[in-house]
Amino acid sequence: MQINPPYLMFLGDVPDALAAKTAAGVVDWRRDWCIGQLRLPGCAADLGIPDISIAEAVAKGCRTMIVGIVNAGGVLNESWIPSIVGALEAGMDVASGLHIRLGSDERIAHAAFANGRQLFDVRVSEQRFATGKGTKRPGLRLLTVGTDCSVGKKYTALALETAMRARGFDADFRATGQTGVLISGRGVAIDAVVADFISGAVEWIAPAAEPDHWDIVEGQGSLFHPSFAGVTIGLLHGAQPDAFVVCHEPTRTTMRGVQHPLPSIADVIDLTIRCGRLTNPEIRPVGIAVNTKAMADDGEARRLLDDLAREHDLPATDPIRFGVETLVDRVEADFPRAMPDAKRA
Amino acid sequence: MQINPPYLMFLGDVPDALAAKTAAGVVDWRRDWCIGQLRLPGCAADLGIPDISIAEAVAKGCRTMIVGIVNAGGVLNESWIPSIVGALEAGMDVASGLHIRLGSDERIAHAAFANGRQLFDVRVSEQRFATGKGTKRPGLRLLTVGTDCSVGKKYTALALETAMRARGFDADFRATGQTGVLISGRGVAIDAVVADFISGAVEWIAPAAEPDHWDIVEGQGSLFHPSFAGVTIGLLHGAQPDAFVVCHEPTRTTMRGVQHPLPSIADVIDLTIRCGRLTNPEIRPVGIAVNTKAMADDGEARRLLDDLAREHDLPATDPIRFGVETLVDRVEADFPRAMPDAKRA
Repeated sequence: MQINPPYLMFLGDVPDALAAKTAAGVVDWRRDWCIGQLRLPGCAADLGIPDISIAEAVAKGCRTMIVGIVNAGGVLNESWIPSIVGALEAGMDVASGLHIRLGSDERIAHAAFANGRQLFDVRVSEQRFATGKGTKRPGLRLLTVGTDCSVGKKYTALALETAMRARGFDADFRATGQTGVLISGRGVAIDAVVADFISGAVEWIAPAAEPDHWDIVEGQGSLFHPSFAGVTIGLLHGAQPDAFVVCHEPTRTTMRGVQHPLPSIADVIDLTIRCGRLTNPEIRPVGIAVNTKAMADDGEARRLLDDLAREHDLPATDPIRFGVETLVDRVEADFPRAMPDAKRA
Repeated sequence: MQINPPYLMFLGDVPDALAAKTAAGVVDWRRDWCIGQLRLPGCAADLGIPDISIAEAVAKGCRTMIVGIVNAGGVLNESWIPSIVGALEAGMDVASGLHIRLGSDERIAHAAFANGRQLFDVRVSEQRFATGKGTKRPGLRLLTVGTDCSVGKKYTALALETAMRARGFDADFRATGQTGVLISGRGVAIDAVVADFISGAVEWIAPAAEPDHWDIVEGQGSLFHPSFAGVTIGLLHGAQPDAFVVCHEPTRTTMRGVQHPLPSIADVIDLTIRCGRLTNPEIRPVGIAVNTKAMADDGEARRLLDDLAREHDLPATDPIRFGVETLVDRVEADFPRAMPDAKRA
């Protein structure tokens, strides 16, 4: 599965900005792929990119229309069908993060077939995977893990890709969730994979690579989340990370969607190492990424991060507020590269 | 999903006894449900029950024909179709543990529809589940866990159900694999559930119950298996067991299907408690079940079990060779029942 940029971002008639969260994530990280947005009357979201028609999108080279919409039930609204069919007829592929398959609507299925276009349902895995083997593969891998769901694992992984590439690392973000798949044009929403194949799917997502190559694997859930730990441990075993970053949101009192308290960062580090050793005995933490949005000033945020850094003997940062350079410093120190001297300087 | 006994066991033309393993498991544990077997010319398996025709099966009250066959690829052989269609036309439901859906064959789908019969594909989950909540439910639960796959978790759970019922416990086996589902007529093959819903499916399989009721939940995989740990931890969190039994096969040198060595029993106890506490802080081991088939005499087997019992301060037995009474003794001691005095004596 390869979703081809550039993209036309379709927002339909969503009632608020939150419903366009997936689309906003793609624009945040792949602004140059996002040529424009297509909004229907009543649409309350705005990605801050030009409003263009399907014909304009095609003229500007768009190859895929992204249905970047989150709604209750993940269903296809009747009002969106003409735009989706129109995009297919105009020669674009269509990719969606909805729970329902695009092709479950006959008109869409027919238009895709008749025009020889692809439909990508990134939330619905049709792909067959082998079961995970757990055999050590060449190449280096970093996984973002968390004290909970939605604590910045995708953001941190993408920020690390950007920062590491800027320093000359050969690094690729590896998507494991729907927004990540649209951002990178490939990957698998592993929460949609059949349970027996979680680690196998991740072995496929982050395959054997050159010894100095880094896969920056997007984490999911938490080993301590009673709903999703199965996904998390399969991802850990399949990614066999050499390094991991713990992501955390300090104001949260219970885990997302359940009544359980959050684990401590120390608990997460400890259990991640304990379980991760199964497929990579050298696994080690390289940093902590904290969402400090709730702290009004930088000084307060810095103090929290400094305390965490001292407590865990790891660099601690807020990737949005302070960037991830200190995390990359630690990666560079812990995994010295065999690089030409010129690059080193 | 409720698969209705009694059963006609369909073996097709399988080339050896191993291919009828699923069917043999059902006969082992539910002999009185299995009225007879239906074998085609060339069938090399024999369940040791009467050979009967579809008409005889219906006359004897059979309500479901079980396709108890394991073959490479899990496909439907063309030679089986007439028997499956015949069973549906004669008024039986049909249940299968194959990877392929029975209804994927048009003739079978049509016969089921035309005759108002049910098709049960126990390996293919179509059911929608909620995500796991991890909230403590009333009722007691025992989960069998293991150092590896295929080390006796299903057998031990079924033996515990039998032994506990014989002692007056209100106990129900809860199936999480295909053979177990056919044995109990209900349950879910949780390795076929979408990754996000593993623990949620188990919460559905072993729901809230009377305070003295025991669910004996069939375990799957191992927390230390690099292919399947996601299934195992989701099962552990969803089952929220009060008690667990560790199953082990002492002659195995690497884990099934991979190159990893087996964990120690102590490792399994420790990590099961560590992870299990998330949804049941009171989780505790109540015994060890060992497959001692490789030991020629009972004395040698006893010595191994006695050593394990001393080392772990737990009853250790081979459920096939020596039964599970010592495990039930420990359950009885650790979880005193509020029972009428008459039953206690």
